[in-house]
Parts: sequence; C-alpha cells; structure tokens
Amino acid sequence: MRIGVLGTGMVGKTIGARLVGLGHEVVLGSRTPDNPSASAWARQVGDGADRGTFADAARFGELLFNCTAGTGSLAAVGSADEGDLVGKVLIDVANPLDFSQGFPPSLSVVNTDSLGEQIQRAHPALRVVKALNTMNCQIMVDPGRLGATHHVFLSGDDADAKGTVVRLLQEFGWPASCIIDLGDITTARGPEMFLPLWLRLYGVLATGEFNIAVVR
Amino acid sequence: MRIGVLGTGMVGKTIGARLVGLGHEVVLGSRTPDNPSASAWARQVGDGADRGTFADAARFGELLFNCTAGTGSLAAVGSADEGDLVGKVLIDVANPLDFSQGFPPSLSVVNTDSLGEQIQRAHPALRVVKALNTMNCQIMVDPGRLGATHHVFLSGDDADAKGTVVRLLQEFGWPASCIIDLGDITTARGPEMFLPLWLRLYGVLATGEFNIAVVR
Repeated sequence: MRIGVLGTGMVGKTIGARLVGLGHEVVLGSRTPDNPSASAWARQVGDGADRGTFADAARFGELLFNCTAGTGSLAAVGSADEGDLVGKVLIDVANPLDFSQGFPPSLSVVNTDSLGEQIQRAHPALRVVKALNTMNCQIMVDPGRLGATHHVFLSGDDADAKGTVVRLLQEFGWPASCIIDLGDITTARGPEMFLPLWLRLYGVLATGEFNIAVVR
Repeated sequence: MRIGVLGTGMVGKTIGARLVGLGHEVVLGSRTPDNPSASAWARQVGDGADRGTFADAARFGELLFNCTAGTGSLAAVGSADEGDLVGKVLIDVANPLDFSQGFPPSLSVVNTDSLGEQIQRAHPALRVVKALNTMNCQIMVDPGRLGATHHVFLSGDDADAKGTVVRLLQEFGWPASCIIDLGDITTARGPEMFLPLWLRLYGVLATGEFNIAVVR
C-alpha cells in the first residue's frame, strides 16, 4: 500500500519505518521538501522510503497518518491539495498538547471537541480515524513488546475506514480482541483527554514503555 | 475508626456499608439531617451506621470520604465546621462532571486545575487525597471482583495521609502493588480527565464492571 506519513518526529519516523518493513511504500511529509531529518530517515530505511512536503505525502498516500504535533496538525493536513484527500483514510495519532506553560502540557482542545473532530470538520472528504494516540510509538507498532494484554482505541464516523485501520493494526501485531471501537469521531475526546493521566504515569514510571488495559 | 462519608448516592452508601462491614463506624452525611435515603441506609446496615448532615459527618469522622456529586462537593465540604476538618484526611472520590448539556457529561474543571485541588485550596487544614474516582463503586470496595490485576491512583500533598489511604485501600482488598502514587495533589488532573474515556468505555462495554490496568 502507498502510505503518506505527515510528521518527521519520532512518531512519524517509527511508524514509517515499520510500514516499510511490512512491505508498504511510505513518503514522510514535512513543511519543506528537503527536511534533513526526513532525508536521513529515507536513506536509512532504504527501498520503499521517501520524503517530501506534507502535500507530497498526502498526494502519494492511499492512506495517511497524522503524526505531527497536535498544535501543527490542522496546518499540516491543510497544506495538502484538497483533491488529494478525497475518500482517503487518515489515522490521527496526534494529541493537542499545549507546552506553552511548560511540562506537563495541558490540552488545547477538551470536553466538547477534539483534534480528531477538528481535522474531520476541516476536511469532510477525509475519513478520519483516531487511534494509537494513547501510547508511545514503539508500542504502537510492536504491541507484543509489553508483557501482557493491553488495548488500543478507535474513533471514527466511517465503518469501512475503521475496518481498514483494524487490518493495519493487525499488521502491526495488534490482536483483534485488543482493538476497542469507541464509536464515532466525537469519542476521540476520551482518548485525547487520557493524555494528562498518561503524562503523570510517564513521570512516575520514568518510562514510556507502558500502556493501559481494560480489565473486566 | 470513625469515618464520615459525605454523600448519600450509590457511591457513598456502597463505601459506607463496606467500611461498617470492616468494623469501622460511619456517619453518612447529606444536606439535611433526616435524608430518607440515608436513614434507610443506616437502618439497613445496622450497628455502626448512622446518618446526619455534612457537618455532622465531618465532626464525627477521624477520616472523611467525599462521595458527593462533583458539582456539589465544595458546598458539601464547606458546610462543615472548619474546626472539624483540621488535620483530617479527606479521600476525594468525586468527579467534576457537568451534565448540563446531557450525556456524556463534560468536566467543569480541566487542564490547569482539578476538583481535588479546589477542595485542598478551600480547606488547607484538610489533607486531601484523590483516589478511587476512576472506577465504579463496587470495584472501589472489592477490587478482587475483576478477573485480573488492575490499578488505583493516589494524588495528594501529604505522605502520611497517603499512607493512611493505602492502608484503607488494602482493607478494601487492594494489593499494595496495585496502588500507584502519582504525586502531589496537582496530579489529580490526570485521573479526573480520564473520566471522558471511562464514560465512552462504559458506553461500549455496556457495563461499569471494568477498570484499567497499567501494563509494562
């Protein structure tokens, strides 16, 4: 599959490399066509990995990942040619973290809205699925690295799009039984508002190598 | 131990009955001295169970539980005689849920403040420990009813107070290894902001009989 990954931070590069390893072709998108970090990533990952602008990545991908910082996500997706978004699934991994007051960050969107909804509203032709934002990127692409069962959440309005995301998560190693469909895109408020607890756990555990499980 | 439980809803009555069952004496407090629901509870639970006003419960208890609705918590604690609060541990189980726009509720306090902090600021003589607000009340007082390991979080400024709460949680059945101290009272923002995710999971699972585990 041809996949556009928006964002050249740790999350974008980790997801992009994993996708290439699974046999997909990836363009990693950033603000500029020749972002040094993205170019180094493409050279290192090799065949199947390329880089370009956000618009290049959006044009290339049959499916898109939003791995930008939450505060830049609307601008990143918005810099794509709108015609290149039509009907495409966008997996929104970003969190609307506001670091302007230091650490821990607060959320710039809460309660009655979410970043996932903002992207969906701004681009009705996209099929946005919120997923994977509740854990670090090593766990996103290799859930088996933790010692017990844990879960990932999906939020989105389009059932077929969620089916596509489930299949991709299974390629990453997620058992179907560990993927919880929360409902429509408004349910993205829940996983996004989980971040303040994640950040405190990160502080206490002194590692991002954890995730949550829903125990019944 | 003499314990004052503020709030006569399901949470207050469940915690109160469990405490009496463990051999503690409990006064369940409400706005009025003769709340019919609290009186029925006291009759049903029997020896060791009594009811009164919020002020009566605060006076009686060596330790207090806040089990009121979050929107009424500051008024409930505030109706106690301030001298009856000095040095006492208050376990804040409440969530600042705002149902004014329907279900699911949003949170009336987020990001840079929490209900736990509001209560602590309003009553510096209290030693507030946020705990147990991330699950339903049957699980709070009987964690073994779930089929696998799961966790409870503590937030508070006073180490001795948190030690007292740990011992009480152990009486409820919580193994020490399942109690995670997140840090000072500002960390209560994390567990409170988890509620929107809890509410979506409640919707999907169609039961409140679940909790989260931190998996490493």
